[in-house]
Amino acid sequence: MGRTSDTKDKLIDSALELIGARNYNTVGVQELCESAGVKKGSFYHFFPSKRDLTLEVLDEMWNQFKTQMLDPVTQSDLSAMDKFNMLLTRAYEQHNSSKKCTGAMTGCCLGNLALELSTQDEVIRQKIEHIFKQWAKYFEGLVEEAISEGSMPENTDSAATAKAMLAYIEGISLLGKTFNEPELIRRIGDGVLKIFIKKKEHDRGNLEKTV
Amino acid sequence: MGRTSDTKDKLIDSALELIGARNYNTVGVQELCESAGVKKGSFYHFFPSKRDLTLEVLDEMWNQFKTQMLDPVTQSDLSAMDKFNMLLTRAYEQHNSSKKCTGAMTGCCLGNLALELSTQDEVIRQKIEHIFKQWAKYFEGLVEEAISEGSMPENTDSAATAKAMLAYIEGISLLGKTFNEPELIRRIGDGVLKIFIKKKEHDRGNLEKTV
Repeated sequence: MGRTSDTKDKLIDSALELIGARNYNTVGVQELCESAGVKKGSFYHFFPSKRDLTLEVLDEMWNQFKTQMLDPVTQSDLSAMDKFNMLLTRAYEQHNSSKKCTGAMTGCCLGNLALELSTQDEVIRQKIEHIFKQWAKYFEGLVEEAISEGSMPENTDSAATAKAMLAYIEGISLLGKTFNEPELIRRIGDGVLKIFIKKKEHDRGNLEKTV
Repeated sequence: MGRTSDTKDKLIDSALELIGARNYNTVGVQELCESAGVKKGSFYHFFPSKRDLTLEVLDEMWNQFKTQMLDPVTQSDLSAMDKFNMLLTRAYEQHNSSKKCTGAMTGCCLGNLALELSTQDEVIRQKIEHIFKQWAKYFEGLVEEAISEGSMPENTDSAATAKAMLAYIEGISLLGKTFNEPELIRRIGDGVLKIFIKKKEHDRGNLEKTV
């Protein structure tokens, strides 16, 4: 990740872990400081409030997701379809591993904070909206690749389709968390591909092989 | 709704309003009592805790949604496709009207509580899982109707498709809340129909007419 392990980074890491595992409102500054092993004075030296820390946590979440997941897959030599399969596979593996470690599927941290805080904190809502729009841009790129590869019709609205794909992925993550069942990502994830591809019956054998 | 307006119902109504507009953790028993115009002693006469009230609120949410939305539409004489269009239309109208009243799209109360609380409260998680499974059963019925009407292939996995449809609807609601933009339901809602229907290019004109 390239970040040096100083006090600020320890606080961001603790917040990623605690807020990611639970939610925003039940994690307090005191607990964050104890978990990071830093004093309260140090917290307020770096962050005026928990909200300011959370804004940096959101940047860090997005940065990790982009550099460890989206960039390597979308910049690979795979077809658009296989890139999408790969993203689903990795999402499943990540959620499954988180459930094995903690007993609970924690879901997508961005979606979690979006639903908990969007009507409570306008600054955080706008930050998550901005991140989702960047994420949708990656999918828009995949849709455009799929069009140029002939696996989607030329008149496809790439921006709307990208948002639809993002909505579906967030929805699967929401149901998976509610059912505490990462397997849902494998079992219904191919619904995204039905939005995504041109042919009516896509190659399910290929999907299962990849996932 | 058929409920008599007694103290317990006032508390449930206040919780529906306050938790629905914000979230679970920032709404306290004191505020709920003030909003309902009842004393704290009365609260604890009916509910051992805020969690117990919330379990009844979830039943009430589901009951309202079922009797006011799902039952009338699914029991109508429309085709499966038109029933689904109607559900999307009503969802859009509801979210749009909520935004006009409060300035904010509050999203789906079930999805909101699911993401906020699933890793925090196992009893609430199980309650929401149970409700989502009942909701998915309605969609499973629609998928089976669509199969018998010839608008979906006979070998469709109706249970998995129903969960995929529910995931997509929850995902649209999540993005709509994050962008504070009910219009998203109209603009990308037809992605559900691409999961749902047999033909590759569905009748977009018909969708727009209905929505």
